[in-house]
Amino acid sequence: MRVLGIDPGLTRCGLGVVDGSPGRPLTLVDVGVARTSPDLEVAQRLHLVDVEIGAWIDRHAPDVVAVERVFSQHNVRTVMGTAQVSGLAMVAAARRGIPVALHTPSEVKAAVTGSGRADKAQVGAMVTRLLRLAEAPRPADAADALALAICHVWRGGAQRRIATALQQSSVTRGAAR
Amino acid sequence: MRVLGIDPGLTRCGLGVVDGSPGRPLTLVDVGVARTSPDLEVAQRLHLVDVEIGAWIDRHAPDVVAVERVFSQHNVRTVMGTAQVSGLAMVAAARRGIPVALHTPSEVKAAVTGSGRADKAQVGAMVTRLLRLAEAPRPADAADALALAICHVWRGGAQRRIATALQQSSVTRGAAR
Repeated sequence: MRVLGIDPGLTRCGLGVVDGSPGRPLTLVDVGVARTSPDLEVAQRLHLVDVEIGAWIDRHAPDVVAVERVFSQHNVRTVMGTAQVSGLAMVAAARRGIPVALHTPSEVKAAVTGSGRADKAQVGAMVTRLLRLAEAPRPADAADALALAICHVWRGGAQRRIATALQQSSVTRGAAR
Repeated sequence: MRVLGIDPGLTRCGLGVVDGSPGRPLTLVDVGVARTSPDLEVAQRLHLVDVEIGAWIDRHAPDVVAVERVFSQHNVRTVMGTAQVSGLAMVAAARRGIPVALHTPSEVKAAVTGSGRADKAQVGAMVTRLLRLAEAPRPADAADALALAICHVWRGGAQRRIATALQQSSVTRGAAR
């Protein structure tokens, strides 16, 4: 499964692509950050980020796009841009018929570090280890995007295994009738 | 000048098109509401609203798209969807090379009623009068979208007159040198 993780933001939007399946080593495919200048108008900035997200989806053809779930309790000064970019990311995927998954920051931290309250350094360290990189991806938004993708590989995989198990158990029950 | 006003929302997104210029009667071109069901996933809902906004822009070819400026102080439960749809509206216009203007709810109310604290009924009544309609557009989101468009015709016009006056005055000064 190939997952594009998107850590939405207007000044810095993290983008990370990971190949993997549960229980097997993960592979880094690509990682980067889309940046826009605060000197531009908001519509122009959103448009630039949207173009970049679309280019990443088209270039890497992910099976799933995983986007960080944004909460309005976040920093009030930046939450609007973050919410707007998360919406663009979801529509960029939906428009191309690619499934979208949302994961909260706590879910992502818990998936890669074992603790939902891990700090940025811990997340960066685990992403580095899990993807066997020489050093942590910078800035933190890039590492966060990879952590999102890893989280989805593992959670999505678990969800699929449960669905498969349920399906097989109903097949068995059907055969036993 | 033709203005498409967009009152962003995930459950109901108001869309209103008005032709006009400052000091002349305004004309209603079209008004409606894009609705999405809360039963769908957010990515799907955003995608549907995005398709609808794009269709309105392509159908009416506005000179400007006026979007309500969203504040994070708003209702916390609905602000995320509102912010996301406002971002989609801005990018839908920017992608097509159409200028985007943002107006706050107070600016819109002040423009059409004279008071920045007018209630929905007052805004609906003034939109009805200014566009010479038989009754107020329903739901309120539709009337709000028209109020946004009217606000832009008048404010955009004023800004243009000021810009023109400044230009002429600098031309005059240039000629006097």
